[in-house]
Amino acid sequence: MILYGNWRSLATYRVRVALALKGIPHEVAAINMQGNEHRGAAFKALSPQGVLPALDDGHGAVLFQSLAILEYLEEAHPTPALLPKNLAARARVRGLSLIVAADAHPLLVPRVREFLQQEAGLHDGELKSWLDRALLTALDAIEANLHASPDTGEFCHGDTPTMADICLASHLIAAQFFKCDTSSYKEAQRIFANCNLIPAFADSHPLKQPGAPA
Amino acid sequence: MILYGNWRSLATYRVRVALALKGIPHEVAAINMQGNEHRGAAFKALSPQGVLPALDDGHGAVLFQSLAILEYLEEAHPTPALLPKNLAARARVRGLSLIVAADAHPLLVPRVREFLQQEAGLHDGELKSWLDRALLTALDAIEANLHASPDTGEFCHGDTPTMADICLASHLIAAQFFKCDTSSYKEAQRIFANCNLIPAFADSHPLKQPGAPA
Repeated sequence: MILYGNWRSLATYRVRVALALKGIPHEVAAINMQGNEHRGAAFKALSPQGVLPALDDGHGAVLFQSLAILEYLEEAHPTPALLPKNLAARARVRGLSLIVAADAHPLLVPRVREFLQQEAGLHDGELKSWLDRALLTALDAIEANLHASPDTGEFCHGDTPTMADICLASHLIAAQFFKCDTSSYKEAQRIFANCNLIPAFADSHPLKQPGAPA
Repeated sequence: MILYGNWRSLATYRVRVALALKGIPHEVAAINMQGNEHRGAAFKALSPQGVLPALDDGHGAVLFQSLAILEYLEEAHPTPALLPKNLAARARVRGLSLIVAADAHPLLVPRVREFLQQEAGLHDGELKSWLDRALLTALDAIEANLHASPDTGEFCHGDTPTMADICLASHLIAAQFFKCDTSSYKEAQRIFANCNLIPAFADSHPLKQPGAPA
């Protein structure tokens, strides 16, 4: 199994955490996102969308989209589980994951920031306002859900980490990158702190990867 | 089971198609998205994110996020299947679905269009360029995948519809709404035409729902 990713990519971080939690042996291939290697012909021949991460499953398939990869890892390596057993509970965990991965993160990625600045002419303050809005709108929804649900525990759903925690952690790291203050989201912060007590999360932090700035 | 949605919401359309394909009895509750009912306290008490759709599962849980709902329906009502059996194939179908639902659709939703026009000051031409970019970038990725994969059949994966077809169809309907020309995407168009031969897709079209303009 080969994980194609980049130290800074938060979607890559999600897969890195899942591989570590499940203890799945794999190689890492660093793609130079800063140099646009993921948009080049060689990488697109591997994964036509040209975004990170991609996972070579070792049997001829190259998987793409972080949540699809997490579902694959869950199905191929069920223990420890990243989804609960109850069907409505699984839907809650997936729903929380998608608030991050589907509703918020796509608004933060380099190609969107480039468009907004270079083509739509947003100045720095307007871009910051855009990024804050995306980050905090998702956190409002997640925090409300965490407060409202009797299933919230040490983690988003119960007392062991699930996909939702992986996505929430990626979101709060994004907020750190973009200097967005999320300290008032007490439930989210509590759970993020619990995640970071686990080596699979802590050691997967973007700034701890080869190539990251000191 | 109660589906809370709106005729125009493309995420609601996805759930509508899945319920129809699987023949699951349900009620429909129309939320006045045009009047911002989904952002009001009553709807948020039901589904804290305040976005459409939501699905009351009939056992006390209200599910949110269209792909989480599709996964729930697949697990609770496995036949006909909306995911293949092979694990890498499931990842492909989920990956294609996420290109639409995670990478493109979040860039098109009302709250993003409002921000871009009202706060970032994009004029109509710049907004059109933003929407076209989001729609066509996703279609580039999907079309490349459809061309490259030996698993592409009458539908995105094989000869029966999956989640990927539901998402692709929602994407091409979005393109119609935003007057974006997608005629050059031959594989996507071929599959969309196949979808629309199935009543579960055709009858679920936004413009065929109560409340839609004539």
